[in-house]
Amino acid sequence: MRVLILGADGYLGWPAAMHFSAKGHEVEAVDNYFKRKTCLELNCESLLSIPNLHARAALWESLTGKRIVVKIGDIADYSFISEVFKEFRPEAVVHFAEQPSAPYSMMDQAKAFFTIQNNLLGTLNIVYAMREFCPDCHLIKLGTMGEYGTPEIDIEEGWIEINHKGRRDTFLFPRQASSLYHTAKIQETDLLWFYVRTWGIRVTDLMQGPVYGITTPEIEKDQGLATSFHYDEVFGTVVNRFVVQAVAGHPLTVYGQGNQVRGYINLIDAISCVYLAAEIPADAGTLRVFNQITETFSVNELARRVRAAGVTLGYDVVVQSVENPRVEKESHYYNPKYTGLLELGLKPHFLTEELLKEMFRVVSQRKEGIISDNIFKGIKWKG
Amino acid sequence: MRVLILGADGYLGWPAAMHFSAKGHEVEAVDNYFKRKTCLELNCESLLSIPNLHARAALWESLTGKRIVVKIGDIADYSFISEVFKEFRPEAVVHFAEQPSAPYSMMDQAKAFFTIQNNLLGTLNIVYAMREFCPDCHLIKLGTMGEYGTPEIDIEEGWIEINHKGRRDTFLFPRQASSLYHTAKIQETDLLWFYVRTWGIRVTDLMQGPVYGITTPEIEKDQGLATSFHYDEVFGTVVNRFVVQAVAGHPLTVYGQGNQVRGYINLIDAISCVYLAAEIPADAGTLRVFNQITETFSVNELARRVRAAGVTLGYDVVVQSVENPRVEKESHYYNPKYTGLLELGLKPHFLTEELLKEMFRVVSQRKEGIISDNIFKGIKWKG
Repeated sequence: MRVLILGADGYLGWPAAMHFSAKGHEVEAVDNYFKRKTCLELNCESLLSIPNLHARAALWESLTGKRIVVKIGDIADYSFISEVFKEFRPEAVVHFAEQPSAPYSMMDQAKAFFTIQNNLLGTLNIVYAMREFCPDCHLIKLGTMGEYGTPEIDIEEGWIEINHKGRRDTFLFPRQASSLYHTAKIQETDLLWFYVRTWGIRVTDLMQGPVYGITTPEIEKDQGLATSFHYDEVFGTVVNRFVVQAVAGHPLTVYGQGNQVRGYINLIDAISCVYLAAEIPADAGTLRVFNQITETFSVNELARRVRAAGVTLGYDVVVQSVENPRVEKESHYYNPKYTGLLELGLKPHFLTEELLKEMFRVVSQRKEGIISDNIFKGIKWKG
Repeated sequence: MRVLILGADGYLGWPAAMHFSAKGHEVEAVDNYFKRKTCLELNCESLLSIPNLHARAALWESLTGKRIVVKIGDIADYSFISEVFKEFRPEAVVHFAEQPSAPYSMMDQAKAFFTIQNNLLGTLNIVYAMREFCPDCHLIKLGTMGEYGTPEIDIEEGWIEINHKGRRDTFLFPRQASSLYHTAKIQETDLLWFYVRTWGIRVTDLMQGPVYGITTPEIEKDQGLATSFHYDEVFGTVVNRFVVQAVAGHPLTVYGQGNQVRGYINLIDAISCVYLAAEIPADAGTLRVFNQITETFSVNELARRVRAAGVTLGYDVVVQSVENPRVEKESHYYNPKYTGLLELGLKPHFLTEELLKEMFRVVSQRKEGIISDNIFKGIKWKG
């Protein structure tokens, strides 16, 4: 299968590219280095050093004999991305090419503007390029569980039947997110659902929860194949951040009461989900939605687990509640369904103490590289 | 009240600017002439000749002694629009400044791209400028009934309570539109609802149906104060188009079966709704939604009424079903609620034979200017 990975330099994009390649698929990897450039500017680069995409693809080829073609360019530029589609004619497109940070999207007008511009116009361009050059291609799009927010009702897997005044219809599950980034994801769902209905394209929307973890089977082949690992407030996800905080001797930063519950997923499983979705594509004219999480935790529970793993390894780990810089409910009902990917064949890797200890081990080797000032900046939602 | 009208050169924008000015408010009028420039390029200019915004504002001042300040620029350019907000510090903003055409948004990639870019980034900039310079300002945003689509359940006024598995919550009414333009309106609702919740801004979303009509009390003062009147497929709305078709001796173009039902509103009432919303603003932290229509009709019923009025005036009017260029249901359930604006004080002007005859009269004076080729191009949704 010809698989186009967009955002292939990212935390998920690079391991996904290697995974498809390892399985024998023809992979083309696209990135515009937005995150690298932004991390350079904000002084929040990856804790693990990561060679550029060309270098990692070259190393991958030298180790495996498998080629990943790299194209550097911007999906929001139609002249670039339409050329990529025209030449490669992908059968599956995995779309990770979004500005992926909620705090970034809340920092100022320019960053909010960029988020909408990059994420929505990029996705629009992909849809147009598919239609023009490979209308039967399957788009696998990363959504987020954050689109649903924290409603008072159970969260279904993408869709809900509504009975109203004696009549009924099925709709997208209501979405109301808690950052501009997450709102842009909702807007992309609107966009894709429109073109699915109107043009009959095939789309899988993976409503992913925050991903944690540092390695995958392909990364383990060589440390030059590492994927980026962020612990800063802008690009780091909570479990990864807590492990780095523990190693650095910084208190674990729990926002407010810490009863915020979310669904989480291991990096290995996140890549598996994308792969499973590609193997068994959505039907033409279908927007297939999966809730891509394997467990739910409160922030307090995550802090407790990271602390427990750290204490076992001899770290002195303190958990501290800090004033919540975000606008979100700190205690709420949360009951999402997430059976679709299990039915597709996902075998979860849960958040065990062993896994956390392995993360501590890798992070501790890079302890000198941790910039304490990056751990907590308090980027405010109401700035 | 200081009222900023964005998109003030448009069909609704200009009469709204005059109406607020006539009522004694301080009005600033902004436009980037997108529609004029596009109509020039597509050879589909307004049937009535309309002096530019500066000229119309000068004429208005000479007739009434009331000043409408004109600023030409692009709301998607934050450096421009933030200056406007900084200097004027509006108390109400009426946001008509969107690419307003469904067929335009479906023509090609560049026009789809422009629709998202202009409509979403423009709205984002307005929200940021409000927050920076007038956080208590009331944003009156033109939505569209088209956001709801044609669901199998009754359409409520913006919101719906959902009971699900023994629990309940209230959400935005489900939205699924039938063009990219209408989808962009959904995306803006997502955007505004997010900032309402997060920043506590005050927003009224007017879910307007297609507007018809050619005059308002302010326009009647002088023909140099006319508002634009489009009969082409890109910018014309159905009733206006049918009247022009009848006058030109062109068959009335009913798409497919013609059982598509929508809610409609007279130009005079559309302006009144905006004015009523401004007089009684939404509360801070509230997204207030009104369904801005006064009657519902099928396309067949509209054609029947226009034909009847035309025949009375001696026109030989033929109704013709043409292959539907759009992707939409041609027969469907449709039961929208629209009581909120009546409760606010709206006194509707319905689609009477008298009103249609008056439209025939004005249009017949400009009969020579009708370009027959513009009446039906068949811009295809699946082009």
